[in-house]
Amino acid sequence: MSGPGAVQEFETARPLAEDLARSIPEASRSLTLTWQDPVASAARGMELSGLDYMRAVTSGEIPPPPIAVLLDMAPIEIEEGRVVFGGKPGEEHYNPIGVVHGGYAATILDSALGCSVQTTLEKGTAYTSLGLEVKYVRPITRDTGYVLCESKVTFRGRRQATAEAHLKSAGTGKLLASGTTTCLIMGPPA
Amino acid sequence: MSGPGAVQEFETARPLAEDLARSIPEASRSLTLTWQDPVASAARGMELSGLDYMRAVTSGEIPPPPIAVLLDMAPIEIEEGRVVFGGKPGEEHYNPIGVVHGGYAATILDSALGCSVQTTLEKGTAYTSLGLEVKYVRPITRDTGYVLCESKVTFRGRRQATAEAHLKSAGTGKLLASGTTTCLIMGPPA
Amino acid sequence: MSGPGAVQEFETARPLAEDLARSIPEASRSLTLTWQDPVASAARGMELSGLDYMRAVTSGEIPPPPIAVLLDMAPIEIEEGRVVFGGKPGEEHYNPIGVVHGGYAATILDSALGCSVQTTLEKGTAYTSLGLEVKYVRPITRDTGYVLCESKVTFRGRRQATAEAHLKSAGTGKLLASGTTTCLIMGPPA
Amino acid sequence: MSGPGAVQEFETARPLAEDLARSIPEASRSLTLTWQDPVASAARGMELSGLDYMRAVTSGEIPPPPIAVLLDMAPIEIEEGRVVFGGKPGEEHYNPIGVVHGGYAATILDSALGCSVQTTLEKGTAYTSLGLEVKYVRPITRDTGYVLCESKVTFRGRRQATAEAHLKSAGTGKLLASGTTTCLIMGPPA
Repeated sequence: MSGPGAVQEFETARPLAEDLARSIPEASRSLTLTWQDPVASAARGMELSGLDYMRAVTSGEIPPPPIAVLLDMAPIEIEEGRVVFGGKPGEEHYNPIGVVHGGYAATILDSALGCSVQTTLEKGTAYTSLGLEVKYVRPITRDTGYVLCESKVTFRGRRQATAEAHLKSAGTGKLLASGTTTCLIMGPPA
Repeated sequence: MSGPGAVQEFETARPLAEDLARSIPEASRSLTLTWQDPVASAARGMELSGLDYMRAVTSGEIPPPPIAVLLDMAPIEIEEGRVVFGGKPGEEHYNPIGVVHGGYAATILDSALGCSVQTTLEKGTAYTSLGLEVKYVRPITRDTGYVLCESKVTFRGRRQATAEAHLKSAGTGKLLASGTTTCLIMGPPA
Repeated sequence: MSGPGAVQEFETARPLAEDLARSIPEASRSLTLTWQDPVASAARGMELSGLDYMRAVTSGEIPPPPIAVLLDMAPIEIEEGRVVFGGKPGEEHYNPIGVVHGGYAATILDSALGCSVQTTLEKGTAYTSLGLEVKYVRPITRDTGYVLCESKVTFRGRRQATAEAHLKSAGTGKLLASGTTTCLIMGPPA
Repeated sequence: MSGPGAVQEFETARPLAEDLARSIPEASRSLTLTWQDPVASAARGMELSGLDYMRAVTSGEIPPPPIAVLLDMAPIEIEEGRVVFGGKPGEEHYNPIGVVHGGYAATILDSALGCSVQTTLEKGTAYTSLGLEVKYVRPITRDTGYVLCESKVTFRGRRQATAEAHLKSAGTGKLLASGTTTCLIMGPPA
């Protein structure tokens, strides 16, 4: 593993991108993102059941978390044990090989999987994801358009929960990627 | 799965976030991101071996892909069969439960895993990731600081390659998450 | 990794188990297993489509492979893109912590997943599994009784196929474990 | 999922294999396996730390579990956080496509992964595997000979542990398959 030397060498990607934008202005794009303090929102969530919290995010009563603004994805259907997220992958999600980065599908799958588990939590109970397994089956591009990601809880035990999700093109219904998770359930304090 | 109705209901997360920013201005943050046309960069990559392409991205000769600007991560060490990515997770990556979203770790792991496989490709050979498996072992917050993600190729066959990656705190060296991938190798045309 | 020394030290588990059986005879159990030459069966399969081959195994026209005899599992329903395996986990599958070993669920899931992909193969096309992801949700014991493992193909492309499987108690219908696979599709020769 | 009808149709694989063995005797092979009551062994294990228990299994003081006899695999090196299993895949592990079944690699990987986690458990603490992810990179046949499977714990927290394992040919050192696990740690009672 790299030592402290590697850290010193590291420059975050953003200044470099800005320098390049100045040097090749005709190829530059930009985007301004705005979000709310996420820790304040999370604290408000502690007073609700998982289902009520997810409903408050969906209705806009609680602001969307920054990651949702950054990657432009949001929950659109919520019920106990099942959620659907919508998203619109764009050019800002591209990887170095000319298609949307696998991290986009991983993030919307992880969001839907985690939130579907969250809808099963009573107030005072928390969860954390232990893992995510993703399968990429079709490429996603800036021409794919809207995507829908449905997740269903497949097991809810006292200490663990599992869920399965499928990411599809909203237009064609074709599968783009699928994912699974195992989550650890914590509390409530006895 | 949701039908066309769900799509019509779907509003992207960004306008909502902007409305909220206007209503609670004291809690608002914003960020402007700039990047280059990713398809042009990818096309330039087709003329290089995978290792030369990754070196050109690392040196800044080829602009970083938009996803790297969005999530603020970049390759910092490149050799055949091994890469290290650096990143700095921040508040803009937060999820609704008050820590950095699992999608951040998934994306930097996916980047490092894919790029380590790419360094083994001769010119004219392409690859695509078939899957990503992530394990989350410690929470990442805006206080974590710089992170390093090292990936090594574990198998390189004619039709498939596999790799393993570990995401660690640059400051403490502690493991934050780990990941594996299987990639499909395509070409060159016989 | 262990070197040649470790190999010399290695004694297969069976003679040790037989020695122990002589020393504590009242606790001993035994089982005799019989099977056919598996390479001959596999060769006969090359002349059939994947669906016809699986039907010939299910009907008994082609002998079951040795692993199916060893672990006592067999396909009971076959159609294009979907299979159901049945099994009866027993004491001979126990692990050192007093329940059926995870390898039992992994093996029946891997069988069902692979065979569901096989049912989509035209004659002359082959497949190989690139991976298996298993989630264990409830313990399996010698009291679990019959189990059913259903696998469905979720994607069938030119070079890859994916499938999802669920292992349930035949008596209660409760989920015991789930699994996914990615398979590589090879041929037919152009 | 299949209903009770499917269960009634189900005949375990063994009688069918025996019928076939009588009908094509020249192609028949058989094997007699002997093991000890596994629940008695597991109960003895509760009085030891995980490391001491694994050492007692390795030395033969505690009988090998039935699955180890069935699949002919055994631990050969044990230390805190690391184990090596040895095995000898044979014809009795063959699948319907003429090579050793993926369940063989899955089972030895699952054994090594779980046991490496077990070596980190103090007396009175238990664990259960939540999942197994396997990558198959080279085929295993009856000509592969001895195999070695090394697993190392990558994270040991209060509630979860993770481990990584590699299955290699003992003769050539080539990677055959790799695997990862996440385990849940339970107890000791506070």
